[in-house]
Amino acid sequence: MANKLSQLDQVFAALADPTRRAIVMRLCAGEASVGELADPFAMALPSFMKHIHVLETSGLVQSEKSGRVRTCRLSPDALLGAEDWFQQQRAIWEARLDRFEAYVMKLKKEKEQAAAKRPSRTARKKGS
Amino acid sequence: MANKLSQLDQVFAALADPTRRAIVMRLCAGEASVGELADPFAMALPSFMKHIHVLETSGLVQSEKSGRVRTCRLSPDALLGAEDWFQQQRAIWEARLDRFEAYVMKLKKEKEQAAAKRPSRTARKKGS
Repeated sequence: MANKLSQLDQVFAALADPTRRAIVMRLCAGEASVGELADPFAMALPSFMKHIHVLETSGLVQSEKSGRVRTCRLSPDALLGAEDWFQQQRAIWEARLDRFEAYVMKLKKEKEQAAAKRPSRTARKKGS
Repeated sequence: MANKLSQLDQVFAALADPTRRAIVMRLCAGEASVGELADPFAMALPSFMKHIHVLETSGLVQSEKSGRVRTCRLSPDALLGAEDWFQQQRAIWEARLDRFEAYVMKLKKEKEQAAAKRPSRTARKKGS
């Protein structure tokens, strides 16, 4: 549990940067070399490698070196774990909305039943 | 777009902390005062208020002061925006898997068709 929490800390921290989110988006479409990944960014390679390192530490990305080329690929489990967290929160939020809606419907029904039992203003006027 | 990106930066940075995630989880179940929110944490109030401030800046939480009580509530749009980001990445990832599966099926079919055209080893032996 502690590990999972700590991984969520690292995954969210990794995704709090637009360059790292762009790398994850690119890797969702398939593996790529560090050179290909760095190409769209006007950034020195050492700075770019720091982003890759943060992504690897978070568990979002894995990389492998073959000769002079380092290839990166997505580890979808870390991404799915973070998405799960959002789904859990939404379930709690939606359950609360459902309870609130049920409460409003109950109030509305009670009001209608009370109104039905009460003689209408016209009926009271006729009786007087 | 730039604002949305910047909000995602702030939302993910806000969620990269277990205390702040716990506050969001609690607020999914309904609004609460700062005192109620702080209660489960062994933390000085000024430190706790810093977490509330980060959550407010990210747009995940809104708060309102009435007398001496500050009440916090969730702003679900910021949470849904971040969940959307994950869903978009998953869609790209799943589309890639679908293409890969279609490619493997195509290869398999071509192999089967080639095997059907080739005379079998037994037939060749009988013919020789």
